[in-house]
Amino acid sequence: MNFASDNWAGATPAVMAAVARHNGGSVPAYGGDEVTAAVTQRFCEIFETEVEVQFVATGTAANTLSMAALARPGGLVFCSAEAHLHNDEYGATEFLTGMKLVPVAAPAGLMTPTALEAALARYPEGGRTGPAVALTLTNASECGTVYEPAEVRALADLARARGMAVHLDGARFANAVAATGATPAALTWQAGVELMSLGGTKNGCLGAEAIVLFQPGRFPELGVLRQRAGHVVSKARFVAAQFEGYFEDGGWLATAAHANAMAARLSEGIRRSNAARLAWESRANEVFPVLGKETIARLREAGAKFYEWPADGIGPEEDCVRVVTSFATTADEVERFVALL
Amino acid sequence: MNFASDNWAGATPAVMAAVARHNGGSVPAYGGDEVTAAVTQRFCEIFETEVEVQFVATGTAANTLSMAALARPGGLVFCSAEAHLHNDEYGATEFLTGMKLVPVAAPAGLMTPTALEAALARYPEGGRTGPAVALTLTNASECGTVYEPAEVRALADLARARGMAVHLDGARFANAVAATGATPAALTWQAGVELMSLGGTKNGCLGAEAIVLFQPGRFPELGVLRQRAGHVVSKARFVAAQFEGYFEDGGWLATAAHANAMAARLSEGIRRSNAARLAWESRANEVFPVLGKETIARLREAGAKFYEWPADGIGPEEDCVRVVTSFATTADEVERFVALL
Amino acid sequence: MNFASDNWAGATPAVMAAVARHNGGSVPAYGGDEVTAAVTQRFCEIFETEVEVQFVATGTAANTLSMAALARPGGLVFCSAEAHLHNDEYGATEFLTGMKLVPVAAPAGLMTPTALEAALARYPEGGRTGPAVALTLTNASECGTVYEPAEVRALADLARARGMAVHLDGARFANAVAATGATPAALTWQAGVELMSLGGTKNGCLGAEAIVLFQPGRFPELGVLRQRAGHVVSKARFVAAQFEGYFEDGGWLATAAHANAMAARLSEGIRRSNAARLAWESRANEVFPVLGKETIARLREAGAKFYEWPADGIGPEEDCVRVVTSFATTADEVERFVALL
Amino acid sequence: MNFASDNWAGATPAVMAAVARHNGGSVPAYGGDEVTAAVTQRFCEIFETEVEVQFVATGTAANTLSMAALARPGGLVFCSAEAHLHNDEYGATEFLTGMKLVPVAAPAGLMTPTALEAALARYPEGGRTGPAVALTLTNASECGTVYEPAEVRALADLARARGMAVHLDGARFANAVAATGATPAALTWQAGVELMSLGGTKNGCLGAEAIVLFQPGRFPELGVLRQRAGHVVSKARFVAAQFEGYFEDGGWLATAAHANAMAARLSEGIRRSNAARLAWESRANEVFPVLGKETIARLREAGAKFYEWPADGIGPEEDCVRVVTSFATTADEVERFVALL
Repeated sequence: MNFASDNWAGATPAVMAAVARHNGGSVPAYGGDEVTAAVTQRFCEIFETEVEVQFVATGTAANTLSMAALARPGGLVFCSAEAHLHNDEYGATEFLTGMKLVPVAAPAGLMTPTALEAALARYPEGGRTGPAVALTLTNASECGTVYEPAEVRALADLARARGMAVHLDGARFANAVAATGATPAALTWQAGVELMSLGGTKNGCLGAEAIVLFQPGRFPELGVLRQRAGHVVSKARFVAAQFEGYFEDGGWLATAAHANAMAARLSEGIRRSNAARLAWESRANEVFPVLGKETIARLREAGAKFYEWPADGIGPEEDCVRVVTSFATTADEVERFVALL
Repeated sequence: MNFASDNWAGATPAVMAAVARHNGGSVPAYGGDEVTAAVTQRFCEIFETEVEVQFVATGTAANTLSMAALARPGGLVFCSAEAHLHNDEYGATEFLTGMKLVPVAAPAGLMTPTALEAALARYPEGGRTGPAVALTLTNASECGTVYEPAEVRALADLARARGMAVHLDGARFANAVAATGATPAALTWQAGVELMSLGGTKNGCLGAEAIVLFQPGRFPELGVLRQRAGHVVSKARFVAAQFEGYFEDGGWLATAAHANAMAARLSEGIRRSNAARLAWESRANEVFPVLGKETIARLREAGAKFYEWPADGIGPEEDCVRVVTSFATTADEVERFVALL
Repeated sequence: MNFASDNWAGATPAVMAAVARHNGGSVPAYGGDEVTAAVTQRFCEIFETEVEVQFVATGTAANTLSMAALARPGGLVFCSAEAHLHNDEYGATEFLTGMKLVPVAAPAGLMTPTALEAALARYPEGGRTGPAVALTLTNASECGTVYEPAEVRALADLARARGMAVHLDGARFANAVAATGATPAALTWQAGVELMSLGGTKNGCLGAEAIVLFQPGRFPELGVLRQRAGHVVSKARFVAAQFEGYFEDGGWLATAAHANAMAARLSEGIRRSNAARLAWESRANEVFPVLGKETIARLREAGAKFYEWPADGIGPEEDCVRVVTSFATTADEVERFVALL
Repeated sequence: MNFASDNWAGATPAVMAAVARHNGGSVPAYGGDEVTAAVTQRFCEIFETEVEVQFVATGTAANTLSMAALARPGGLVFCSAEAHLHNDEYGATEFLTGMKLVPVAAPAGLMTPTALEAALARYPEGGRTGPAVALTLTNASECGTVYEPAEVRALADLARARGMAVHLDGARFANAVAATGATPAALTWQAGVELMSLGGTKNGCLGAEAIVLFQPGRFPELGVLRQRAGHVVSKARFVAAQFEGYFEDGGWLATAAHANAMAARLSEGIRRSNAARLAWESRANEVFPVLGKETIARLREAGAKFYEWPADGIGPEEDCVRVVTSFATTADEVERFVALL
């Protein structure tokens, strides 16, 4: 019963097969190969527009390099108070870009236009904190919730009116696409997103992430930024190959839909039980039940793996926990977890 | 006829098999898994001492994080004038550590104690360039040459007498071990090396590098440094698994020995031909012939891949080129190359 | 009627005289002179303990170098949400140290132990935001309010229990000493402060700030950090001389007391008038009246200089403004301002 | 007999008078004052063109902020191997900009076009060290030698042909103007210099340096860079005032000419004596005699202050020393020094 994280799972057969398929022969390094070219073309098709893609090995690399591309001296980056980039990357953005992160209130992980406006008002143009440079949204969010295209658009409009760039942390973007039924384009550039981190790892790759730029060539120094940060994989074909396998026959959305469905089943089971309530109404592959400490102990004893998670309004005898599903989660695991409640 | 780079090759069957073997099941992320633990133990056996290992995806990551672990404000890092870290990493060390690299004369890629002493004398203790913090050596060197254990020791002694740490860039360490016949221990900690970047990628991995610390626990903040730089792979088992396959049955030394042998055959062929001379007498898997421009054109036309390389004493009608062999190089390729001269 | 800032004033006669007095002759540079030595001794007397002093030219330099001395990778610095360091230094701390500032709720500029505890709880030890490294307090605060020694102690105790260092931004420290009647020692090291930025500029110097370390020698690399940041003044005697003049005959407390008294008179006048209310009950040399927009216009027309200031609970027809007094403010200016209300 | 450094001297009467003159009254901070505006106008007159001026307190600040304005990721800065920026600023440029300094051979402190061309050739465009971003020259050089306008032009042409910006470190610019008899314009923008650090401190100010930009507005973020580095002096009028006094009646060139003349007299005395030879033929206010160790001891015993200096070709019984003159050096001091040889 692994619900600790989606990155505790391995890789899908399609991904493994693609890596093996492209192993043979002698191929240019650093992205000069045909697999990289072909997969970049796949990105264009999936996003229904010309995109530039820079492959990296980790999500933190994708996020911080995106921020580095946008960086200006003394710049401010507005993010959700729950953002991974803010809470879980050991200050990578501050260190690599020198910019300040401004956390915006985001109950259930979703920023509202009102909250963003209030935050922007606190940092007026010409102020001595420096210029507002970027807005970064996470979709699916860190709380398992999801922005609809119109919600992304509303936030992006506010940011762009202030001259800020709009970035999307899509570590679980496939889950957002699967949950909303919106197209990748509708959730990104059509809604005002200018660049994104697109994660493959959590949803079935070995280790493959991509920075997707919706204005190809906009950041001519991004290549050097990657090199300088040690984020250029030499045998680049193997990262590209993972994405080839990932996208094959829409597999990336199928695995995400499966993970979402498992999470929905968990949510339903939790709602039905009397032993727990949900901290947030999630739609992607993370569920956050608030459980009695005894229940938590019982679940763990039975072999369920999960982590505690900070949440508001938690009583002394209970805790909020994060329960994550993945492409590898089985209905049986879910049933056993629910049965234990 | 790929002689462009050893990272144009794919992965060895043993590496691929190990990755596939460890794909199943649910496994803790970020290095908390059993593969990582077991492979770390293999490193201890190979180096005949207790070591700490931090796995990363790129050689630049291994080098810059090693430097970051050692960094002091205003610090100086002494390296060969040919060092990859100095010439090919886009200023990564300067950017990530704020330190200054001091290139030391290194004909044929090998620093001499005399040259190092002269460089150290130029930066006396208490000077206004800041403290001398580290010496970094590359073995096998960027010129295909190799330090013997006693040569490493002589340089390390000078550095340590000055209170500096000693780092080894071992992107092609296997080739140095194979070329010298010395043990990994003799070439590293027994000769005064305190930490190293050990490369797997060029010699048969998909993308696997390791920082090896010969004093476990010496840099307690290295973990945070890795996270902050985006260099912690989440599905860490797959990097560890590559090293498992890499070390299996001494495979890493067999592939390196093969590459070295192919290079030696190239050197011999070049020496015998009248069409070229060798810029340096290399012992590892890189050969640097100086060729007439016509010969270069003819080789390229015949499908040989290689890059030009800066070297001294090159006439107007010739160029130095770098010819790299790998585990995948065949005797047939070598023969065809030599025949074309 | 200058109420725009205390740094719109010039220097006091005592400061100017000291600079002129030490102009003659040939004197070692970079702090190796006798004035620097003698003035450092004065700091020891004033703080009633052995201190190390590093002189710099700006308050931002004092703050960021203090933070740089304390910096650890991925570190967190807890500060008031109103802190100058957070709001008015263009991200200097993030840029120079790579650390993240965590703003703590501080109504009227003063953090409470409850608010600090809540903030610390949000960033538990071992978390993925990195380690809690420092607490920085501003006294007198940015809102004209003042911490009493016991209040400093209560916050410092919380910080030290978590292993954090405690820094004081004393850009207006003289005003805090004058307002509380506490000794410099009682407000700093006796209350748990480990290092501070002590400002001279706003209270009568030309440009003189000091980093005061209550554990001499604790940060052996601070000297290099200063040099590397370009914050070592070569003719250092002139910065030290300013402090000599500043401290002479307790002048620094007399000028601060005067400024505080002028501010108190302004507060009283504002309270008595019907045209305004005070945003916060200040005790130092800054007063924050909330005024009708018409009143503001009338004051400006009459030649009063001041800036608007963000505050909560401001109606549509009014604004909060910051009214700053200094050693040079005259009772006459104050009376004219009050009369205009 | 102070020959240790020109920054061991105090300030000239004209500088002190200007500071005192502008002390009165209430004046906008951070450079919004009339003195700053008027002195900026003086810079325009002196350089015979429209310039933008940013005042700072130290030479390292002027140099590193100039570099920061020019910085690009992975960038290379070409400087003389003797450059202060390279040897005496504790890695400030590397730290604040992340760029790499490339030292160019410069016998007697002066780079030749041949040496610069050779250095540029080692770092070809598109290479993996990153882009060539800037050339920085020091005039007068660190060896007391001086570039003529045509020499500056020849080097600047090479740099600009490669798309690099040209910076001048003018810590002792007045001495270069006095020594060459060229106009400030001829030595800077007319010869291809795009921005410079102009020093006032060593030649008679208390602490006043300026970044002079020959294309006003070219670096719109320089203001934020200054703030973020803590290099904006709040009572800016006092830095501007120093330059007012400095330039008054051509005083800056008179003091420099005096220092140069004293140095010439020293050189002549040294040449005439049998006890010493000159390491370089200097024309500005620094002289570098090579003296027997006994002579050095005798000079020191007699009260002469000076430092040893690295130079090539020094025998075992001798040392090279740096003898610096300033506006405050007297002919009597010089005579006593020479007599002691």
